[in-house]
Amino acid sequence: MASKILIIGGTGYIGKFIVGASARLGHPTSALVRDTTPSDPAKAKLLAGFTSSGVKLVKGDLNDHESLVKAIKQVDVVISTVGGEKLADQTKIVAAIKEAGNVKRFLPSEFGVDVDRAHTVEPAKSMLAAKIHIRRAIEAEGIPYTFVCSNYFAGYSIPTLAQSDSFAPPPKDKLTIFGDGNVKAIFVNEDDIGTYTIKAVDDPRTLNKILHVRPESNIYTHNELITLYEQKSGKTFERIYLTEEEVLKKIKEAPFPVNLMMGINYSILLKGDTANFEIDPSFGVEATKLYPDVKYTTVEEYVSRLV
Amino acid sequence: MASKILIIGGTGYIGKFIVGASARLGHPTSALVRDTTPSDPAKAKLLAGFTSSGVKLVKGDLNDHESLVKAIKQVDVVISTVGGEKLADQTKIVAAIKEAGNVKRFLPSEFGVDVDRAHTVEPAKSMLAAKIHIRRAIEAEGIPYTFVCSNYFAGYSIPTLAQSDSFAPPPKDKLTIFGDGNVKAIFVNEDDIGTYTIKAVDDPRTLNKILHVRPESNIYTHNELITLYEQKSGKTFERIYLTEEEVLKKIKEAPFPVNLMMGINYSILLKGDTANFEIDPSFGVEATKLYPDVKYTTVEEYVSRLV
Repeated sequence: MASKILIIGGTGYIGKFIVGASARLGHPTSALVRDTTPSDPAKAKLLAGFTSSGVKLVKGDLNDHESLVKAIKQVDVVISTVGGEKLADQTKIVAAIKEAGNVKRFLPSEFGVDVDRAHTVEPAKSMLAAKIHIRRAIEAEGIPYTFVCSNYFAGYSIPTLAQSDSFAPPPKDKLTIFGDGNVKAIFVNEDDIGTYTIKAVDDPRTLNKILHVRPESNIYTHNELITLYEQKSGKTFERIYLTEEEVLKKIKEAPFPVNLMMGINYSILLKGDTANFEIDPSFGVEATKLYPDVKYTTVEEYVSRLV
Repeated sequence: MASKILIIGGTGYIGKFIVGASARLGHPTSALVRDTTPSDPAKAKLLAGFTSSGVKLVKGDLNDHESLVKAIKQVDVVISTVGGEKLADQTKIVAAIKEAGNVKRFLPSEFGVDVDRAHTVEPAKSMLAAKIHIRRAIEAEGIPYTFVCSNYFAGYSIPTLAQSDSFAPPPKDKLTIFGDGNVKAIFVNEDDIGTYTIKAVDDPRTLNKILHVRPESNIYTHNELITLYEQKSGKTFERIYLTEEEVLKKIKEAPFPVNLMMGINYSILLKGDTANFEIDPSFGVEATKLYPDVKYTTVEEYVSRLV
């Protein structure tokens, strides 16, 4: 029997992919929502989509302990996909899981670099620290967990060719590269992140482990990604390289939250935090090796669709 | 005698303008820093600039209560300019001020819209809520305060013509406008924010009040700002208008922190939160009226410099 899954933060950027995968892969799926009939039409449409996929909407709130405990008691697995601004609030989920006492696995909101092995500067550093804090709280409480490090969101980084200062595709004619652009990074399609995450929830091999998502065909340097796009599109970009010192100065001078975005790219594209370490079996497992049957979207396919 | 001022977060985006104004206007000025000799060259250079302006570097940390109390005991006024990710941590400053017992005025990290009167959606809503929470904590403790609502950072919004998805000037050929673009917004130069803030610290008229910075010549709709830029530069932009429903959908679909940036622009450019209310003397005063001697930078001067 597939475990029953509750997703907290399911209407967010990555949350909706996790909700979608959970329903698609046959798990009885609920999504915690503050309001089952929201006035915001975009949110209402999203929730209607959930319902039509068989997802149950459970009214509750991170800040309403009783509602949280009640929702958690109905399921086996809790997945948090709360946004960057609510990471610290996940201590409330930890407390509710502890009280409910029935949870077989908790996946906190991660879905990025391995925060215990990353290198960045403020304010991105504080965001990673919030995730680290939740990891330690989960371990201290003895709650069974999987931490999903799904690396760089493809839908976020590929359409703009991983720029920190422009999020609207198409990519600009001049591209800024943090460092020499020869550092490997791992780009993962959001639908695939959903699939691998849900595959992991009932798998004993991922219990109390970090699930690293490292699709072999999706490891590119920034330069290689740009070159691939150039080849597929016939366009050519001017590449402006910034030294580490120049990048740190830019981060220092940018207002929030632009500096946060830059700090994430500094970690991934200059420090290489998605790919600069070996996965040691003592702490981690790799998703494409555990689930070789999943046909993931390659960066090449992704770029081909864009151009 | 000019009061002694401690700035917490002085190396941040708006902090360095406040530190600069404090020193320039003759206040004995200290900046709380975690490390007086940082390895990051950009930060080291900034601190050297502080020192050469006569600013004292005080070693301390928001999370080190004793260091905070000690630094606060040396001054009369505390200004926090901590970044968006550290807003909630300001309860630690409130506690330290309470313990120190000598502070004549506290200015928490605000420098945006009037958070008690603003309208936005998550995750920007949570950021505003953190500022509201600090306002209430200050009031509850009876700490003398001034809340500085300096509206839209000119250096952040004018060079890109207030786009949510591109922070690198020059502005793009196609500009996205949230709503009909006919809502008034207030753009304020960062140096002027520094000047008005420091002018306010010893002023009895700003005690326990909100200081709104509303330079008459700097109130523009998004359309007017773009037209001004077009007139000065000779360029023409394609304007793409999004309905409120489309904006909310875009925010919902964007990853963090892009959705945060969009939420700020939704508040300012569509809801009109910098200019959509009268300043009632029961809660607020207006900076350019209190300090008519300050020659502020107009939006027109700003745009003329850019093109």
